[in-house]
Amino acid sequence: MSEVRIIGLDGIPEVRPGDDIAAFILEAASKQDLTLESGDIIVITQKVISKAEGRIVDLDDVEPGRFATDYAEQWEKDARLVETVLRESARIVRMDHGVMICETKHGLICANAGVDSSNVEKLGTVTLLPEDPDESANEVRQKIEEATGASPAVIITDTFGRPWREGHVNFAIGVAGMLPIVDYAGEFDPAGYEIKVTQMAVADELAAASELMHGKLSRTPVAVIRGYEYPAGSGTADELLRDPERDMFR
Amino acid sequence: MSEVRIIGLDGIPEVRPGDDIAAFILEAASKQDLTLESGDIIVITQKVISKAEGRIVDLDDVEPGRFATDYAEQWEKDARLVETVLRESARIVRMDHGVMICETKHGLICANAGVDSSNVEKLGTVTLLPEDPDESANEVRQKIEEATGASPAVIITDTFGRPWREGHVNFAIGVAGMLPIVDYAGEFDPAGYEIKVTQMAVADELAAASELMHGKLSRTPVAVIRGYEYPAGSGTADELLRDPERDMFR
Repeated sequence: MSEVRIIGLDGIPEVRPGDDIAAFILEAASKQDLTLESGDIIVITQKVISKAEGRIVDLDDVEPGRFATDYAEQWEKDARLVETVLRESARIVRMDHGVMICETKHGLICANAGVDSSNVEKLGTVTLLPEDPDESANEVRQKIEEATGASPAVIITDTFGRPWREGHVNFAIGVAGMLPIVDYAGEFDPAGYEIKVTQMAVADELAAASELMHGKLSRTPVAVIRGYEYPAGSGTADELLRDPERDMFR
Repeated sequence: MSEVRIIGLDGIPEVRPGDDIAAFILEAASKQDLTLESGDIIVITQKVISKAEGRIVDLDDVEPGRFATDYAEQWEKDARLVETVLRESARIVRMDHGVMICETKHGLICANAGVDSSNVEKLGTVTLLPEDPDESANEVRQKIEEATGASPAVIITDTFGRPWREGHVNFAIGVAGMLPIVDYAGEFDPAGYEIKVTQMAVADELAAASELMHGKLSRTPVAVIRGYEYPAGSGTADELLRDPERDMFR
């Protein structure tokens, strides 16, 4: 019986700048008698990574420009928050109904460029996305390898909305130790016909699966997925970003 | 230790029109000593449902219209396939680079209106999406309830591409026995702040998770997800479709 398990890591403490997420993960795993293994995928929400990396902005320190001030007034927003979103953006994709869909400097397209005011410790502060989520994932992976000898893959996730569909799901924004996409090009299905849908974004599927464990109210920012044979390799989350030339919804 | 399990159901035979998918599921579960329970989520790929419901078109029976013929010629496509896609569409969302992104009559937005020529038994035939995937899901759920007394939730999935991102993932196109979206509006995070991302599309997350088990090459069109406390209720996949008024990427 083939089976994939999504195991929640309980007991990750409130994260502060400078904290060592890998150490927290190892401690939490150890407390629930879970030995991390090569082949595991450790899925971590962006929020705890951002906090550990000090990607926190106190809105009192932000001087909004004229554009941010005007827009904020029009839509009854906090101008300092709007300014922070603009600073994190490479490009505004849509700006309508008081919603800003931005392309971040990483090339991710999401609301508010990933700037988030939920689950922060201090009111009036917001978190930014990690500067280099692949690097963040690699760092956790290396530390776990050094401590245990096991080489799990690591995925950093964030929660985005989608065009056309209601509700949010988790996406992979950083990847280490695996390829984010499985390519079936040229392979044949059991009936002998060539596979047409060739590429599955398995890192996004793993991210979505992990969210079932994270929940939104619980303190479970880390899940371990076991039993899924991911494509090994030095992947990067950039592979999940569509080439603008081939994107019909820019 | 909280845990969600994604269990693959092996041994579902090649499905033909008129076949009883619920019976296949019960038999496959029984063979691997898996007793279906209330609280389980049975996730089924669209392809086997479509086949069982006879949603198969022999392209030889399709007379393409002028629009389909011209477009097919321009992009070196099969005009009969293009015609079939048009017939399944309520609206063309984008038509560029030889790709047709369509809104189906259910309101789903996807390439080729869900018309699929992979994994069919007979070359020159294609499958259409189920006419009413919620109804398909309900039917499986009822039959399983009648046979076992258990009332699992049922999700029907299909594989779609996404704007902005490479690779495909599985989405929920039919739902029975659960609400597809969990709403955290008004609830508070552990630090006491109100949750801002209020709605999680858990049916889509479950669909994505199940694909990790399905694979593309294996004959595992059904997965059982156990251990996830979904929101019970008479949900419909329509709840996952964004109101056009609020959609910035129509």
